[in-house]
Amino acid sequence: MKKILLLCLCMMQFVSAETEFAIPKPSIDHPRKFVFPITVRDRKAINHVLSSANNVMKFYGPENTEVVIVAYSQGIEALMKDGDRDIRKRVEALMTYDVEFIACGNTMRTLHIKKKDLIDGVEVVTAGIVELIERQLRGYIYIRP
Amino acid sequence: MKKILLLCLCMMQFVSAETEFAIPKPSIDHPRKFVFPITVRDRKAINHVLSSANNVMKFYGPENTEVVIVAYSQGIEALMKDGDRDIRKRVEALMTYDVEFIACGNTMRTLHIKKKDLIDGVEVVTAGIVELIERQLRGYIYIRP
Amino acid sequence: MKKILLLCLCMMQFVSAETEFAIPKPSIDHPRKFVFPITVRDRKAINHVLSSANNVMKFYGPENTEVVIVAYSQGIEALMKDGDRDIRKRVEALMTYDVEFIACGNTMRTLHIKKKDLIDGVEVVTAGIVELIERQLRGYIYIRP
Repeated sequence: MKKILLLCLCMMQFVSAETEFAIPKPSIDHPRKFVFPITVRDRKAINHVLSSANNVMKFYGPENTEVVIVAYSQGIEALMKDGDRDIRKRVEALMTYDVEFIACGNTMRTLHIKKKDLIDGVEVVTAGIVELIERQLRGYIYIRP
Repeated sequence: MKKILLLCLCMMQFVSAETEFAIPKPSIDHPRKFVFPITVRDRKAINHVLSSANNVMKFYGPENTEVVIVAYSQGIEALMKDGDRDIRKRVEALMTYDVEFIACGNTMRTLHIKKKDLIDGVEVVTAGIVELIERQLRGYIYIRP
Repeated sequence: MKKILLLCLCMMQFVSAETEFAIPKPSIDHPRKFVFPITVRDRKAINHVLSSANNVMKFYGPENTEVVIVAYSQGIEALMKDGDRDIRKRVEALMTYDVEFIACGNTMRTLHIKKKDLIDGVEVVTAGIVELIERQLRGYIYIRP
């Protein structure tokens, strides 16, 4: 009896209200689309955004997601070729899952950064903030992780 | 004359353009729905989110609002049973107004937090960020206060 | 041959994927509408929001945009008449382009700020956060720059 009670208590521990999906549910035909900004030059903050991208892809399945990460202002650091090595590896790993990385051209001009200074595969747009806006209008969910 | 002028000046002081409601206006049938994140372990920041929840409920009337607060990353601290006492009291008070508090299961696993460590009544989902996303797709307004 | 190769390399440098517009494209009839919050009392952060407002107006053309900036909590500092002089000049310059500046009445009451303490032309609403919410519901894009 005590054992059963203990078992029940343990199970209760893991009972949790799961997130209710919006309609249409996420699928290959109706992928969840996100756009995350990176705006600060801070390893922890950058890693937090990359982890968030990773978590949503793990949860929904990479095939049911479209993830875009836009770096601007001090956050451009995250996409620099000669930046933090571990971050670069994570960025490149996420690219293999079709995560799009986009750098802000305005920021690059201000900070004298060339396209060749960025990790290969990073796209450049005129203004990072415009990219965030248009993506939202195109149905992407904007989250600041 | 001087008095009237003074009165006018005083009144002008209080003239303000009030927020224009979107259609449909907030009501019991069309409640305003919000989802607020708590992401940092900082008393001031946590209190700011709780105050924001309070302010919107006061403004619209609790019956015309649905408020959800999702804590993840370092923000999980806000929902810990043995965390700051005043914060706990505020969380419990907001719960009596049907504010939903949701903790991120990923964060809990990373930080070795059990459900029993959380304030009673807190729900747990697999990933806090997914909850933010699906709530938005279900019509909740996402604000980082 | 070497020159041509060099030229090609230089051109590639400037090739960039431009932001794809959502439909309807921005125009006078379909202006892009934004609402930006200012929440912190930090010159750099305030200037970053003002620059962001400037950047989107430059990109889309002022006639194709509607920009609203809501200051609340410590961010109210940005709209104080006797605050930072350069910030005040920028706020007034943006006003000439019809950028709306809105102050949170709740914050003003808490911090004992009168309307006359604010830069002329600033509007006051009961709650800054409510303004952010209703603007979103009225089709404004919410970005925390």
